[in-house]
Amino acid sequence: MPGNPSSAARPLDVLRRSIEKNVLVDVKGKRGYSGILEGYDVYMNLVLKSANEIINGESKGVYDRILVRGDNVIFVSPSKGEKQ
Amino acid sequence: MPGNPSSAARPLDVLRRSIEKNVLVDVKGKRGYSGILEGYDVYMNLVLKSANEIINGESKGVYDRILVRGDNVIFVSPSKGEKQ
Amino acid sequence: MPGNPSSAARPLDVLRRSIEKNVLVDVKGKRGYSGILEGYDVYMNLVLKSANEIINGESKGVYDRILVRGDNVIFVSPSKGEKQ
Amino acid sequence: MPGNPSSAARPLDVLRRSIEKNVLVDVKGKRGYSGILEGYDVYMNLVLKSANEIINGESKGVYDRILVRGDNVIFVSPSKGEKQ
Amino acid sequence: MPGNPSSAARPLDVLRRSIEKNVLVDVKGKRGYSGILEGYDVYMNLVLKSANEIINGESKGVYDRILVRGDNVIFVSPSKGEKQ
Amino acid sequence: MPGNPSSAARPLDVLRRSIEKNVLVDVKGKRGYSGILEGYDVYMNLVLKSANEIINGESKGVYDRILVRGDNVIFVSPSKGEKQ
Amino acid sequence: MPGNPSSAARPLDVLRRSIEKNVLVDVKGKRGYSGILEGYDVYMNLVLKSANEIINGESKGVYDRILVRGDNVIFVSPSKGEKQ
Repeated sequence: MPGNPSSAARPLDVLRRSIEKNVLVDVKGKRGYSGILEGYDVYMNLVLKSANEIINGESKGVYDRILVRGDNVIFVSPSKGEKQ
Repeated sequence: MPGNPSSAARPLDVLRRSIEKNVLVDVKGKRGYSGILEGYDVYMNLVLKSANEIINGESKGVYDRILVRGDNVIFVSPSKGEKQ
Repeated sequence: MPGNPSSAARPLDVLRRSIEKNVLVDVKGKRGYSGILEGYDVYMNLVLKSANEIINGESKGVYDRILVRGDNVIFVSPSKGEKQ
Repeated sequence: MPGNPSSAARPLDVLRRSIEKNVLVDVKGKRGYSGILEGYDVYMNLVLKSANEIINGESKGVYDRILVRGDNVIFVSPSKGEKQ
Repeated sequence: MPGNPSSAARPLDVLRRSIEKNVLVDVKGKRGYSGILEGYDVYMNLVLKSANEIINGESKGVYDRILVRGDNVIFVSPSKGEKQ
Repeated sequence: MPGNPSSAARPLDVLRRSIEKNVLVDVKGKRGYSGILEGYDVYMNLVLKSANEIINGESKGVYDRILVRGDNVIFVSPSKGEKQ
Repeated sequence: MPGNPSSAARPLDVLRRSIEKNVLVDVKGKRGYSGILEGYDVYMNLVLKSANEIINGESKGVYDRILVRGDNVIFVSPSKGEKQ
């Protein structure tokens, strides 16, 4: 199957299945954002709604909407309450 | 739909919808710029008008116009007053 | 054989054979994740289930599912109990 | 319009319109250069004439002509006196 | 001769000739791995068997098998006992 | 005109016109090299003859010939005495 | 002339002419290697024989053969005794 090197789940499927759900995004520089995933692309650029910024473990405020550049992403995790 | 891996919003749409509106741009090295988004390209190179430079949380002056290289962008957020 | 510069094992085969098995993933910034490998792609983007995050040698919590961006990966090791 | 993702100004237009005008170029490593923009290319490699080097806010000397590698550019700003 | 800019040895030949032999791999972040080279690809992704991890000069444990991402490799050296 | 986004000078022309002349090359890590530019390519790999290495502002010795990898270049400046 | 932007020497020619001669290779992280250049490729991956590793100015041992990844190279210099 082209583009899918095994029968395993494809990494971007995690993003597709998380649309309109809460995700936690960890980026370089000890920062994180938790919010509702509104969009993404193949570069892992992400759009979050109602995004809470966390720096060094402390909440630093909320953004209505934020575009996070994929280059800086370390990981994306669907929130714990997620059901798939 | 080619180029759009899901029915979700595409990340660059956030930029398109923010043209002529205030955005906050966070870049590497603890810097940020708030200003009116005048232009962008697919590399996330951005042009801001009336851009206020913020370093380590302090305003450092205003630029009539500034071209920010996309490589350094961490996130772009439409300003809180924005309606979409 | 195209894409295989020798008769040696191909690096991504280590990932293919580790699907649904425990792996240890070491990433930049003194972090690691141990969990069950659910998926991967050619960029070494990885999906782990029941992933335990380890920072500076200490467990920092568990994620049901996590997408780790390949850029940040230093190494992936099948867990010691693995049989192949 | 191919190559122009919106009706907005294109980022490189800022450079084109700044030819033979003063610009301020900020690069990685707390350095900046102010001078007359003589040339540029799509990689944001820049040529400045009569470029004043500023390191940590202090002037460090003047170069008749300098080629700045685009990789290191953080931002380019037309000087405040500019009319467009 | 395409792909070979001179009559000199090609760098990846060092890897090909080291298959099933001991190598020392030095990676960014003051780490190294010594083990038996099981596989590699053109990105210098490497698979080592019985890999001993060395951090800041101290042995930190052994991995049955480890996939090291090529991006992080500084050098690879066949072990001193090697005959070619 | 293909490859030349404006009527402005092209950045690599600065290199072409500096062949067999003195240049100052600044690279990452607080290093510089001054010498006679013998060659270059589109990656900004540079060959200098009689290159004086300067680290943290101090001369560290002279190399008959040195190939500097373009990745590390911050800027190249024709020496002040240059006439063009 | 395709691939050669001027009549100047091409940077990789410095490598070609140094085959089987002593070179000094400086890499990121305050390290260097001096040895006999056995091979190279267009990525500046290098193979050295009888390579002496120098860290922070001190010799740290000799490798029979070492493959240095081009990404990390800062410069390559033919040794001073070289005649060309």
